[in-house]
Amino acid sequence: MEGEPTRIIVAVNESTIKGYPHASISSRGAFEWSVQKIIRSNTSGFKLLFLHVQLGFVDDSISFDDMDSIYASPEDFRRMQHRDKVRGLHLLEYFVNRCHEIGVACEAWIKKGDPKEVICREVQRVQPDLLVVGSRGLGPFQRVFVGTVSEFCVKHAECPVITIKRRADETPEDPVDD
Amino acid sequence: MEGEPTRIIVAVNESTIKGYPHASISSRGAFEWSVQKIIRSNTSGFKLLFLHVQLGFVDDSISFDDMDSIYASPEDFRRMQHRDKVRGLHLLEYFVNRCHEIGVACEAWIKKGDPKEVICREVQRVQPDLLVVGSRGLGPFQRVFVGTVSEFCVKHAECPVITIKRRADETPEDPVDD
Repeated sequence: MEGEPTRIIVAVNESTIKGYPHASISSRGAFEWSVQKIIRSNTSGFKLLFLHVQLGFVDDSISFDDMDSIYASPEDFRRMQHRDKVRGLHLLEYFVNRCHEIGVACEAWIKKGDPKEVICREVQRVQPDLLVVGSRGLGPFQRVFVGTVSEFCVKHAECPVITIKRRADETPEDPVDD
Repeated sequence: MEGEPTRIIVAVNESTIKGYPHASISSRGAFEWSVQKIIRSNTSGFKLLFLHVQLGFVDDSISFDDMDSIYASPEDFRRMQHRDKVRGLHLLEYFVNRCHEIGVACEAWIKKGDPKEVICREVQRVQPDLLVVGSRGLGPFQRVFVGTVSEFCVKHAECPVITIKRRADETPEDPVDD
């Protein structure tokens, strides 16, 4: 019965409050739920694939220290891209370390672009058995303005999708965060 | 790490082509997927809860032999309700037998009402870790007329939900069926 492991893509992002290398509450929730409720003690039956999507240059989540930067040459942009990559790797390191502790096989990688579209494209390419995405659990009013990656993936990803809503007691003061 | 088993509600219904006691293609697909991809060899780590919702008296899926029936007394209605229940039990028997073969603990029960609302109410009552629903994988045009139980549950159920779309090669000629 145990052939190839069940391959689960877990889409992860950084905390909007604490920034890199901290994982968002909803990413951590989605990961820990998958471990506790799906993988359980059957660590050899699963492989976790962590996908972190970074916004490209059209990045509206740019932080304040970026505001002071002056980009004067192609080299400056390359440096920024390099710095983003390093930050993303620190985020992924958290999840890879957790998997190592638990004893479950994993892979992790970074892509650039619009998260919802990149996630669906990666599902098409990698063909996992399952996609797990965290959700901030926004109300309908907030959703209109924020839009949700999870709703898009549920509709468009070519594999079964689980959305793990953040628990109410984990909600930070500003519900748009994390 | 293995405490209480992960409790999964699987919503199941009868085949709209073959009728009772046959399970719909999408129900069977959702069940088999859960066994192969989630439970795997860890049969003691999970408990499957089969919920079958029967439409009440406002039943637009009534079959032709019902058309000839004459309901003349309260007893006739009780008999019909009894017959519906027996049919539902035959459907559930299929899944309970499969669980017995595989060696996974299960429970199964029938409720009356509007499937999408009853499923969400039962999730609230039973508090499972996960809800699995099959989906006929209708296109956007068909969805407008048919509506989907799965979409409603993804939005409203108070637990994580996996929608298992029927594979294209399992699609019967009339896509509204099963």
